[in-house]
Amino acid sequence: MNTALSAQENIIKPDHLKFFEEGILKRIITESAKKTGSVVEVITTASQIPELVGEEYLEAFGQLNVTHIGVLDIRTREDAKKEEYLDRVRKADVVMFTGGDQLRLSSIFGGTEFLQIMKDRYQDEPFVIAGTSAGAAAASTNMIYRGQSNKALIKGEVQITAGLGFIDSVIIDTHFVQRGRIGRLLYAVASNPGMLGIGLGEDAGLLITEGNTMEAIGSGLTILVNGRKMAETNIYDVEMGSPVSIKNMRVSVMSIFDKYDLSQNALNIKKAVKVENGVFLAAPDGEKLDSRTKNQEPRS
Amino acid sequence: MNTALSAQENIIKPDHLKFFEEGILKRIITESAKKTGSVVEVITTASQIPELVGEEYLEAFGQLNVTHIGVLDIRTREDAKKEEYLDRVRKADVVMFTGGDQLRLSSIFGGTEFLQIMKDRYQDEPFVIAGTSAGAAAASTNMIYRGQSNKALIKGEVQITAGLGFIDSVIIDTHFVQRGRIGRLLYAVASNPGMLGIGLGEDAGLLITEGNTMEAIGSGLTILVNGRKMAETNIYDVEMGSPVSIKNMRVSVMSIFDKYDLSQNALNIKKAVKVENGVFLAAPDGEKLDSRTKNQEPRS
Repeated sequence: MNTALSAQENIIKPDHLKFFEEGILKRIITESAKKTGSVVEVITTASQIPELVGEEYLEAFGQLNVTHIGVLDIRTREDAKKEEYLDRVRKADVVMFTGGDQLRLSSIFGGTEFLQIMKDRYQDEPFVIAGTSAGAAAASTNMIYRGQSNKALIKGEVQITAGLGFIDSVIIDTHFVQRGRIGRLLYAVASNPGMLGIGLGEDAGLLITEGNTMEAIGSGLTILVNGRKMAETNIYDVEMGSPVSIKNMRVSVMSIFDKYDLSQNALNIKKAVKVENGVFLAAPDGEKLDSRTKNQEPRS
Repeated sequence: MNTALSAQENIIKPDHLKFFEEGILKRIITESAKKTGSVVEVITTASQIPELVGEEYLEAFGQLNVTHIGVLDIRTREDAKKEEYLDRVRKADVVMFTGGDQLRLSSIFGGTEFLQIMKDRYQDEPFVIAGTSAGAAAASTNMIYRGQSNKALIKGEVQITAGLGFIDSVIIDTHFVQRGRIGRLLYAVASNPGMLGIGLGEDAGLLITEGNTMEAIGSGLTILVNGRKMAETNIYDVEMGSPVSIKNMRVSVMSIFDKYDLSQNALNIKKAVKVENGVFLAAPDGEKLDSRTKNQEPRS
């Protein structure tokens, strides 16, 4: 792991339940400044059951031998102003946004000093921002906050608002496969073709370093939707409530170890091989196995 | 409706439960040689509950004022040889394959005279072949018959075999959105890039005329995956059990009234407008509303 890699990063992962098995949580710690000595703060704001969710993360990070773990139980914009919390977010090495409702995240943290501290530290320090589910969806400048697309793509049904703004030029959807969200992600990108659509399946995560290199982590499926070369859509042309058509989006599938360069829009496919117990290692086809692969080993 | 349109066709639709409301079943009758006077045979072979499913279709076609409706309750290859059934399929104007397990369809009908009669008539006569769910999935030369892709795209997990072979060069997946099958369709096309992948959502259907023009019917979402210009995949390169990556598939969204020319791989997007009760009409932006739109009107 080089310094650049740990300087600015963002780990997003949809389903905390299997975090531990999948090695994604472990990877967060590996990428953090002081490893198991890092100060981790869990932000449960998105959740309606913050105590329960907070406990789960305390336990999961504890099992990874992290000793400094706290929960920032921020439920209102008033809470977010508390000097104690501002102080804790200034000192944390890792903040972890749990799942829940991403609109709670944006409406409670939007425009706060709390959020600005995180953004500044994310720019300048070896500070890890991680998020799962709603916590991942809210990481980008634009986020999808509601919208079914089980039937036709209906103009006006997918709704987008400002997210927390840690990452530009992407729009992230989670629980992507199980909840059948390909339609809504295609819609979101068709209406914002400059954005890269990212659909995270269960047990899929992305590690974003330097704000522009994304690495697939976890065993799940990540779908990328690139609308920059979209041939045609009638999205601007049809009335609200009418079905939308879209022609020739570029869609890619990222698997574990693949990297995507956001500045170049280039996907670098890397071979992974299954070894045992569902554990993947990067194939020795050029790059030699590095410390990252160790994180994918089963816990002993 | 011109003669060419009704000469050879195939209607595929995933979910029979809402058939009637969606006007898709009605469209099948409109496209048939003798309209409500057509002889309709329902083939329940795919289903494990053929009596129940057969009854549903008898009722649904009955409500459309079709008077000659029968159920071909073929459960084995022996059944498929019965002279009575061969005779009935020779006389039918419409055959309707119900849902169930597409592998039952291919293994029971593959290589039979029964299937050959349908293929010959489909080539030469105004004969409508319709299918829902498994009945739609089995219509193409290659069909997906099993495969989860909820997690990573794992080499070997999506399995393809020969379908009934009414349509070449496409591979059809159904219940596409609700069951989160984008991964498995991308996989199927990446391994057969000459095939056009078709993902039918709930309440989506395609009308295929002349073997090469597809029209989206029903209110649902149809996704097209074109692999001909896929930039890269490691599908041939990784071992069985390892995750697969895919770069730059062309993905399009078809909505009601859109047409796709299979011979040219060209999507022709048509504006639809919502009028009332979830009913769509083609917008009067060039082509004038024709008899088809009448089928989309609510039942009186």
